[in-house]
Amino acid sequence: MESEGQPAVLVGKKPVMNYVVAVLTFFNQGANSVAIRARGSAISKAVDVVELLRRAFMKDLNVKNISIDTEVLEREGRKSNVSTIEIMLEKPKT
Amino acid sequence: MESEGQPAVLVGKKPVMNYVVAVLTFFNQGANSVAIRARGSAISKAVDVVELLRRAFMKDLNVKNISIDTEVLEREGRKSNVSTIEIMLEKPKT
Repeated sequence: MESEGQPAVLVGKKPVMNYVVAVLTFFNQGANSVAIRARGSAISKAVDVVELLRRAFMKDLNVKNISIDTEVLEREGRKSNVSTIEIMLEKPKT
Repeated sequence: MESEGQPAVLVGKKPVMNYVVAVLTFFNQGANSVAIRARGSAISKAVDVVELLRRAFMKDLNVKNISIDTEVLEREGRKSNVSTIEIMLEKPKT
């Protein structure tokens, strides 16, 4: 799913703004693309991160690809399925 | 975002299985593609619906496209931004 050395931000329980700043930092350090990943209920927040970036910080940000999948987690000996999302962002061409 | 006459399922507060059944019903009625849409925190559930369909009911189900956007809602005179997702599903080719 990922390219090697690809900068990635894993969205979890922190506020949306923390992940927005993490993405901006990667782009400011010269990354051309950043992957945003999330599992389960954090999927909605991952979409919020991208939309906030597009509205407020990088208007020309390009959403190159969005893919969804299932991950099998084993917790206390029980297997459970959790949905995942990966959103590939690309720096606007200048 | 949508084609005219496109069957669509809007994912909200009901259990995941209700939306799975709604999608299956559209396909069984002869639809070739079904759009799944959700807003805000229901976005994660929309992904769960697609992943459950793919794992358990329609293994060859094709996710044709996923797009995200922002909708401006006005509630009690205040504007708020809410993220949205649209997942386009296509019947497997037989």
